[in-house]
Amino acid sequence: MPRVSDPLVVYALRFGDSALVHAQRTSEWVARAPIMEEDVALANVALDLFGQARMWLSYAGEVEGAGRDEDRLAFHRDASEFFNVLLVERRSENFAETIAQGYFYALWSYLALEKLVHSNDARIAAIAAKSRKEVAYRVRRGEDWVTRLGDGTELSRARMQAAVDDAWAYTGEVFIADQVDDEMVRRGVGFDPAALRAPWEERVRTVLTAATLRVPDDRWMHRGSKEGTHTEALGYLLAEMQVLPRSMPEAAW
Amino acid sequence: MPRVSDPLVVYALRFGDSALVHAQRTSEWVARAPIMEEDVALANVALDLFGQARMWLSYAGEVEGAGRDEDRLAFHRDASEFFNVLLVERRSENFAETIAQGYFYALWSYLALEKLVHSNDARIAAIAAKSRKEVAYRVRRGEDWVTRLGDGTELSRARMQAAVDDAWAYTGEVFIADQVDDEMVRRGVGFDPAALRAPWEERVRTVLTAATLRVPDDRWMHRGSKEGTHTEALGYLLAEMQVLPRSMPEAAW
Repeated sequence: MPRVSDPLVVYALRFGDSALVHAQRTSEWVARAPIMEEDVALANVALDLFGQARMWLSYAGEVEGAGRDEDRLAFHRDASEFFNVLLVERRSENFAETIAQGYFYALWSYLALEKLVHSNDARIAAIAAKSRKEVAYRVRRGEDWVTRLGDGTELSRARMQAAVDDAWAYTGEVFIADQVDDEMVRRGVGFDPAALRAPWEERVRTVLTAATLRVPDDRWMHRGSKEGTHTEALGYLLAEMQVLPRSMPEAAW
Repeated sequence: MPRVSDPLVVYALRFGDSALVHAQRTSEWVARAPIMEEDVALANVALDLFGQARMWLSYAGEVEGAGRDEDRLAFHRDASEFFNVLLVERRSENFAETIAQGYFYALWSYLALEKLVHSNDARIAAIAAKSRKEVAYRVRRGEDWVTRLGDGTELSRARMQAAVDDAWAYTGEVFIADQVDDEMVRRGVGFDPAALRAPWEERVRTVLTAATLRVPDDRWMHRGSKEGTHTEALGYLLAEMQVLPRSMPEAAW
C-alpha cells in the first residue's frame, strides 16, 4: 500500500495518473498521425487529458495536505508511486495500438465518470462532470477509428486485430476492486469497478463485431497498478517526462 | 529551383512548411516541459501551428493545381522539396533551445504577418489575419521564458545564453530575399524580408538585454531553405512524420 494515509488520495491519483500518463503517450503520436486532421485531434486529446490530470492531481495534493501541488506530484514521484492503469502506459508501436489502447481506456473512463458525477464528494463530482464530454468525444473517435481500420484493407484489419489482442490483456485490472475502492464505495465517493465490466464488454463486443474484428478470448490478465506495480515502459516514460523539472533548479521556473 | 511553376506555390509552402515542421518539433516537447501548465501551453502552440500549416499547404495545393491537398503535401514530399526555415527544423536538446528557437521564429513570423495582412492576395491576407493573434501569443510567451530563464539562476542563464548563441546562426536566411520574394513584392502579394531585420533585431536586443543575456556578435549564418537545402535533422523529422501515411495503403484512412 502507498505511503499516504487517506485512501482518497490514492483514489484521486489513480484517475489523475492515468490521465497524465495517457496524455504523455498521446502527445508522442501528435505529428505522427496519418493525416493532419488527426494530428490536430490528437493534440486536442492530449490537451484534454493534461487538463483532467491537473484537476485530479491538484485535488490529491490538497487531500494529502503535505504541501505537494500537481506539478510536484507529476514530476517528483517514482514509478512505484504512480497509480495509473497499465493500459495507458504501454508504448504504441503503430497507430492501431494507439487507437486500441485509447478506445479501451476511454470507454472505461466514460462509464466510470457516469458513476462519479453522482459522488458524495463534491469536488470529484465536479471533475467528473467537467471531463465527461471530452471523454465521450474520445469514445466516439476511438469507435470511428476501430471501425475504419478494422473494416478497411487486409493490412489495416490485421494491424487493428493485433492491436486489440495485444491491449486486451491489460483491460482486466480496471474491473477489480481493492480496499481503496471498497472504502470509496462505503463513503459514497466511488463505485464498484466490477459493475463496469458488463456494459464495457457489451459495447466493445458490438463495436469490434461491426468492425469485422474478433473479440479476444478470456485469458490471463496483467495487473498491479493499484499497488504501484508497473511495466518497464512507465519508468522510461517518467524518465523523459521528469528529467527537466528534476534536473533544473526550481528557482529557475 | 523547385519543380513547380508559379512562385506563389513556393511562397505558400515556405510559410506552411515552417508551421508544420515547427508544430512537429513543438509537439516533441509536449509532456516534457518543466511544469504541467507549460505542457498545456505547448500543446496549444502545436495545435495553432498545425492549423496554420493546413491553411498554407491547402492554398499551395490549390494554386499548384496538380491535385495535391494539404495531406499529400505534408506526407508525400522529401526533404529537398520542403521550404521551411532552417531555424525551426533543429532538434532541441533542452528546454532553453526550444524557447530560443520558438521565440526567434515567432517574432519573425509576427513581423511577416503584419506585412501579409495587407497582401493583394485575399487568401494570404486572410490566413495572416487569422494567424496573427496566435503568433502574438507565442512572441509574448517566448519573451516571458527568455526573461525567466535568462534572469534566473546561474545555470538557467548559462543554458539560455548557449541556446541563444546556438540558434542565432540560423536567423540570417529569413531576412534574405530571393527571386520568389522579389516576384511576390512585384505582385503586391508579399514583402521584402530585409525590411524585417531592423525591427526584429531591435526587439531581440531589448529582450535579451533585459534578460541579462548577451546579444551574439555578427557571424557566419546558415542558409539554404529557400532552395530546399536542409540540415540532416529535417530528414529524420520527416521520416518519423511520414512513415505511417507512406507505409499504409491510402484506402485504409
